[in-house]
Amino acid sequence: MRQYKAEIIAVGTELLLGQISNTNAQWLSQQLASYGINVYNHVVVGDNLKRVEETFALAESRSDIIIVTGGLGPTDDDLTREAFQSISELEIIEHPDSMGKIKHFFEKRKSVMTPNNRKQARVFKGSEVLENKVGMAPGMILTHNKSTWAFLPGVPREMKQLATDDVFPHLQKLTGNKDIIKSTVLKFIGIGESKLEHELKDIIKAQSNPTIAPLAQNDGVVIRLTAKDTSMEKADSLLEQTKQQILHRVGTFFYGVDDQTLEGQVITLLKQQNKQIAAAESLTGGLFMSKLISVEGASEVCSGGIVCYDTTVKENVLGVSKNTIQSKGTVSEECAVEMAVNVRKQLNSAIGISFTGVAGPGEVEGHPAGTVFIAISNHTGENLVEKFIFQGNRNTIRHRTVLKGLEILYKYLK
Amino acid sequence: MRQYKAEIIAVGTELLLGQISNTNAQWLSQQLASYGINVYNHVVVGDNLKRVEETFALAESRSDIIIVTGGLGPTDDDLTREAFQSISELEIIEHPDSMGKIKHFFEKRKSVMTPNNRKQARVFKGSEVLENKVGMAPGMILTHNKSTWAFLPGVPREMKQLATDDVFPHLQKLTGNKDIIKSTVLKFIGIGESKLEHELKDIIKAQSNPTIAPLAQNDGVVIRLTAKDTSMEKADSLLEQTKQQILHRVGTFFYGVDDQTLEGQVITLLKQQNKQIAAAESLTGGLFMSKLISVEGASEVCSGGIVCYDTTVKENVLGVSKNTIQSKGTVSEECAVEMAVNVRKQLNSAIGISFTGVAGPGEVEGHPAGTVFIAISNHTGENLVEKFIFQGNRNTIRHRTVLKGLEILYKYLK
Repeated sequence: MRQYKAEIIAVGTELLLGQISNTNAQWLSQQLASYGINVYNHVVVGDNLKRVEETFALAESRSDIIIVTGGLGPTDDDLTREAFQSISELEIIEHPDSMGKIKHFFEKRKSVMTPNNRKQARVFKGSEVLENKVGMAPGMILTHNKSTWAFLPGVPREMKQLATDDVFPHLQKLTGNKDIIKSTVLKFIGIGESKLEHELKDIIKAQSNPTIAPLAQNDGVVIRLTAKDTSMEKADSLLEQTKQQILHRVGTFFYGVDDQTLEGQVITLLKQQNKQIAAAESLTGGLFMSKLISVEGASEVCSGGIVCYDTTVKENVLGVSKNTIQSKGTVSEECAVEMAVNVRKQLNSAIGISFTGVAGPGEVEGHPAGTVFIAISNHTGENLVEKFIFQGNRNTIRHRTVLKGLEILYKYLK
Repeated sequence: MRQYKAEIIAVGTELLLGQISNTNAQWLSQQLASYGINVYNHVVVGDNLKRVEETFALAESRSDIIIVTGGLGPTDDDLTREAFQSISELEIIEHPDSMGKIKHFFEKRKSVMTPNNRKQARVFKGSEVLENKVGMAPGMILTHNKSTWAFLPGVPREMKQLATDDVFPHLQKLTGNKDIIKSTVLKFIGIGESKLEHELKDIIKAQSNPTIAPLAQNDGVVIRLTAKDTSMEKADSLLEQTKQQILHRVGTFFYGVDDQTLEGQVITLLKQQNKQIAAAESLTGGLFMSKLISVEGASEVCSGGIVCYDTTVKENVLGVSKNTIQSKGTVSEECAVEMAVNVRKQLNSAIGISFTGVAGPGEVEGHPAGTVFIAISNHTGENLVEKFIFQGNRNTIRHRTVLKGLEILYKYLK
C-alpha cells in the first residue's frame, strides 16, 4: 500500500513569539496516526507573505498531504490565502453561503460588520468548501500538483470540528486505508498512574494489539486502548477482551469510557435512582453544583444549593447551629454534617452534600490550607463524613475538593 | 543593527505522533523574543537520518541562529550528532568530563552502565561544551558556515538549564544587543477582535516600537505591546505612551494589564467600595460565585449565594413570588430582578446579582437555548436588568453568561 507523507503547517507570528503553543499540531498528529497516516514534519511560520509562500512551496515538493492551520481570519496579517494563491495561481472567490453566515452573525448581534470580515468568506475556486459550524471562516480542501491541501482556521475548536467532520473522512478515502483503527479510553478515579501501571505491568508488556497506553490527567488516570483489524467488529472484540482483562484487576477504580465524565456518571446514577441532590458549598463556592449542572439533563436531579462562603451565611441562611460554629468551628466534621443535612432539608432533596475547608493561602481556625471536610446526608438520616488534606495552591485545592466530592458521591451511589 | 534570523528545530518522532507537545519551542521563543532575537521558523522532524540532515541543511541556508532540541540521548534513534556530522564533516570526540559524570551517575546508583550511554558524552571537536547540570547529555554551541548552532537535550528541564546558563548569554554577546525588551498585555472585554483592530488600524499600522499585536482569547481580547530601548525607563515610557494612545480610543472596554483578571478586578473594586456581594444562580449553577471565590482574599467581599436551579428552590428558598413565576415565568426580567433583590436581602449583602435563562439544549418556557437575563440589585433599591442571547452549546452558553456577568458588574462598580 502506498505510504502517504503528511506535513502540518501552522501560520502565525504569535506562535513564533511563544505567546501560544502549537497544540493544533499535536492533536492533528494524534488523529492522523490513528488513521494510519504518517506525519513527517511540523512547521511554524510567521505572518509574512514571502516566508509563508516558501514554506508552502517546500511542503508541496516533499509531502502528499499538507494541513495548514491559521491565517484565514479577518485581519491584514491573515495571509494564508494570498500565499497559496501566489504559488498556485488559483482564483479566489467569495463563497456566498459563508458570506451569508457572517452577515447573519452580525445582524443577530445587532452589531456592525466591519469590512475586513468579508475577507473570511473568500475561498479558492474549485476547492471543497468546509462548513465552519462553530466560527466564521470556512475551511477548504483541494488538490494541487498531486498534493492534497487542507486549510483550516487556527482556533482549536473550529479546527477540530472541520478536521473531524471533513478532513479525516476525505483523507481516509484518499489513502484507501482499509484497516480499521479503533480506540477506546478507560477512565479511573482514586488510583495513581504509577500504581495503575504497576498493577497492569505484565498485561501492558505482553500486549501489542490493542496497544495499552496509561496517561495521567487532571481528573484521574486514563488508559487508551488502540486496536487495528480488518473490520469494526474484530477491532471491537479485541478492545473488549483487553478491557475485561484490565477491569478484572483494577475495576474498582473504573468509572467510564471515552466521553463519559465522572459528573455525567453521577447524574446517570441519580436519575436511575430517581434522587434529587442539593449542595452546601463553602470553599468550593458553587463549583461542585456547577459541575453537575454542566451535564445535559441535570435539571431532573439537581435542585441547587447554598454557597455559604461567609460564616454568617452558614449560620443565618443554612442554619448551622451557633453552638457548632463556636465550639467546633466551621472547618469541622460537625459543621460539614450539619451543612449537608440542612441543605438537603431546605431544598427538599433526597441527598445533601457539603464542602467546608481551607482553600488558602492562609490558615483558618488553626487548620492549614488544604484541610477539607466533605459530608453526605440522605433521607434515612445516615450521614457520611470524611476529612482530606489536599496539596497545591488555592484553586488546585478547590478543584481537587470538587473531584473528590464527585468520586465519593459516585461510590456512594454505586 | 544587524537583524539575526533564528530557527528552532525539534528532533523526535514522538512529537510527530502527537505523544508530546513541542513546549520547548514555545519557551525558547518567549525567551529569545525578550533578548530581541526574532524567530522565523519552528520545525519538527522525526528520528530519521536523511530527513534530519535535510532539515539541518535548510536551516543553515536561511538562518543565522539555529537551536536544536532533542536527539542527543543514548538510544539508536537519537541521531542529531550523526545528521549534523554528515552536513558539516566535523569530527566527533568523547568529552572526558561528561563521560566521567555519566560513569559516576551509574556508580552512585550501583547500576550497570549499558554501552549505549557512552554515546551521550560525544561532542563535536572544537565546539563549546555546555555542562548539563540536571541530566547526562551535555549541550554544544558551535559556528558553522556563519551560522551559530546550539544543540540541547529535548528534556525540558535540561534544555531550560542549558539555554539559560549558556546559550542566551552566548547569543547576547553574539548579537551585541544591549537593548532592553519589555512587553505588556492590555486586556479588553465587550469588544471583538476585528472591531478593536478596526478602531486602532492607523495606530497599529504606523507603530513599530512598541509593536502592537491584538489577539482574541476565550475571555476577551488582549493587545500585546512590545517595546525595545536602551533602558528599562525608556522602554516603560514607550509602552506607556502607546497604551494611553490606545486607551484614548477604546478605553471603555479596558479592564486590566498582564496577569490581572476580570474577576480579580471585580474583587478589587468591591474591596475598595467595601461592598459584599451575593449571587442567585440558575443556569450558571454556582459558576459565577465560584469564579469570584477563585480570587485570593475574596472572602472579605463574597458572602455566597443560592443556586436555584430548580423552580421550587427559586420559590421556596429564594422567595421569588408565585405570581411572578406563574405570570412571567422563570426566564424573565421580573424573575431575574426578584432573584437579585432576594439574594441580596437574605445574605445581607450590599449587592445582589442574578442569572436566569436557558442553557439548553432544549428550550424552556418558549425561550430558545441561549436566552439569559442578568440582574443587579443594590441597597438603594435601584435594579438593573439586561437580556442576552448567547450562541453555542450548553456549557459555552453558561461560560459566556458568567463572563457577561463579570463584565456588567465591573462596569457597574466602575
